[in-house]
Order: sequence, then structure tokens, then C-alpha cells
Amino acid sequence: MTQESAHDIVRRYHRAWTGGDVERAMADVADDIVCRAPGVDLHGKEAYRAFIAGFAPALTGVADIAEFADGDRVALFYYPQTAATATAPAAECFTIRDGRIGESVLIFDRLSYGPPARG
Amino acid sequence: MTQESAHDIVRRYHRAWTGGDVERAMADVADDIVCRAPGVDLHGKEAYRAFIAGFAPALTGVADIAEFADGDRVALFYYPQTAATATAPAAECFTIRDGRIGESVLIFDRLSYGPPARG
Repeated sequence: MTQESAHDIVRRYHRAWTGGDVERAMADVADDIVCRAPGVDLHGKEAYRAFIAGFAPALTGVADIAEFADGDRVALFYYPQTAATATAPAAECFTIRDGRIGESVLIFDRLSYGPPARG
Repeated sequence: MTQESAHDIVRRYHRAWTGGDVERAMADVADDIVCRAPGVDLHGKEAYRAFIAGFAPALTGVADIAEFADGDRVALFYYPQTAATATAPAAECFTIRDGRIGESVLIFDRLSYGPPARG
């Protein structure tokens, strides 16, 4: 058996939730995940699942910017595409512990994800 | 002469501006830098300088989260500390071209950097 890298785990997680399969994504998340998200700290998988599940349906696509891996840490920069914007980037810095995502710092500009301009 | 790595350049840039020396930092920035910042795309060094110079005086400190380097690309995650917050992270993804920062994607949540709560 080949051991999965932190990068493999994060890629699979990212592909799952951005593809709409939040449950699949959560298989790579630790029960005691701590996530610092804009304006809120999320503690535990249920809170994290609810947060991601609240955003995933708004996603219409995703465009990669860059990804990095260093030991147990992996960083993703990408454009989540929604009806409101396709040019507001997001960044995530994951820490893998025991094969799952144990910590995440998630950064995006909430103001850029407001409702689309009327018109 | 040892050639500087992209990581070296970004570290020096970051240390300079977060230490209040915006002019020193700008020595590592290309004249034609393009920076995607929250709510605004900055084109050229003067626009970029004005943006950084507008924020730097508010900085009271900085706490590192993680840094990554991969070829010409470097990513920083950190907490810029201001009177408003010390727990709102920022991320930057730099691309180095010809020894200077040619491109940057800068991400933070503008709402988290509002004025401190009254009290």
C-alpha cells in the first residue's frame, strides 16, 4: 500500500466538495477539525460540514490559481465561481493529521461574494 | 554570487513592509506588477505602493501561519495585527519574474478589518 500524501488528501477533498459531493469530501476531514473561516471559527466536523454545505450549492465552477505542499501542510489558491463573481480568489491552508484534514485556515473576502449587481 | 531564490525575495519584501519600510519593500517589486487585491485590481508599482502604504501604518505586528515556495511562486499565510483584529488571516500568492515580484494575489476579508467595536 502506498501512503497518501497530504497533497493527495487535499486534492481529493477539494475535488469532491467543489464537484458538489460534500459527503465524499467530509470523509477526508477529522472529527475534531478546527477551521478559521471569515468571521467565524468552526469547531468539529458537523459545524464544518454545515459551513461547506451552505456554500457548495452556490458554486458554478472553480478555476485554479496555485497549489503548494510542504510536509503536512497544503495550500490552495483558486477562484470559486458563483453567480456573484468569478474573480474573487480564495485561499486555504490545510494541516493534515493522521491522514485527515485536522486544521484549516480559509480566507476569502466576504464583500466580494455579495449578491450580483442588479441589472 | 549566489542567486536569490523566489522565497528569499518574498521574505525580504514581506519583512520590509511589515516592518514599516514600504520603500525598501518596493525595491523587490516589478514596475509592471499586477496585484489582485480585495475589491480592486492594481496595475503598476505606483498603484501597488499606494495600496501597501495605505495599510502599513495600521499594522501593529504580524504573526506567521505558514509559508510555501514552489519554483517562481511563493505563498504566505499570516495574521496582520491591527487595532481592529489580530485573528483575521491574510494570504498572498506571489509570482517572481526576473528577480522581482511580478504578480500577486492578495486575499483577506475586508469585513474583518473594520474599525474596532466601540466600548
